[in-house]
Amino acid sequence: MQSFKNVELIKKANVYFGGNVTSRSFVDENGESKSLGIMLVGEYKFGTNAAELMEIIDGEVEVRLDGSQEWKTYGANSSFSVPANSSFDIKVKTITDYCCSYIK
Amino acid sequence: MQSFKNVELIKKANVYFGGNVTSRSFVDENGESKSLGIMLVGEYKFGTNAAELMEIIDGEVEVRLDGSQEWKTYGANSSFSVPANSSFDIKVKTITDYCCSYIK
Repeated sequence: MQSFKNVELIKKANVYFGGNVTSRSFVDENGESKSLGIMLVGEYKFGTNAAELMEIIDGEVEVRLDGSQEWKTYGANSSFSVPANSSFDIKVKTITDYCCSYIK
Repeated sequence: MQSFKNVELIKKANVYFGGNVTSRSFVDENGESKSLGIMLVGEYKFGTNAAELMEIIDGEVEVRLDGSQEWKTYGANSSFSVPANSSFDIKVKTITDYCCSYIK
């Protein structure tokens, strides 16, 4: 089973949208900040500070980046990038397990 | 912020009860298996293989161990133990962030 080794894992969860989206923050062995999270079915808007690489581990989402008219679909083992200081809308079609990397 | 250092964090989430309970498994620096999880409001029954120490990081639950008639309430920074090869019923009153340690 795939894993991240030698990480520092923050104990307290991040809770968004009343618990419909939750995540666990950690710092990987290269010093990169990441989070592993779960999104339940629903529609959400997220803002970014750092740029983000969002990897869908399992599930299905439709994503529209800020400034775009287009919804794009992402499933298991696909990913999308979001610029810094931006936002995206996401429609979660089935419960989605994701890994977010914050890009310096 | 409290954290676990030098852990191996499993990438894929554990999903129970349609996503109402989800957790992330990891192995701490002493080789102990643990998970950090979220339980949404609801009532659940869990079985154990190994004995478990359940620490409530945040939230509120009522717990009845197998063989007991009594419901006990646990809130933030409290914990309860469950024997191996047993089960417990849990009523989650508010979204609950927990850490489960599997005792060898």
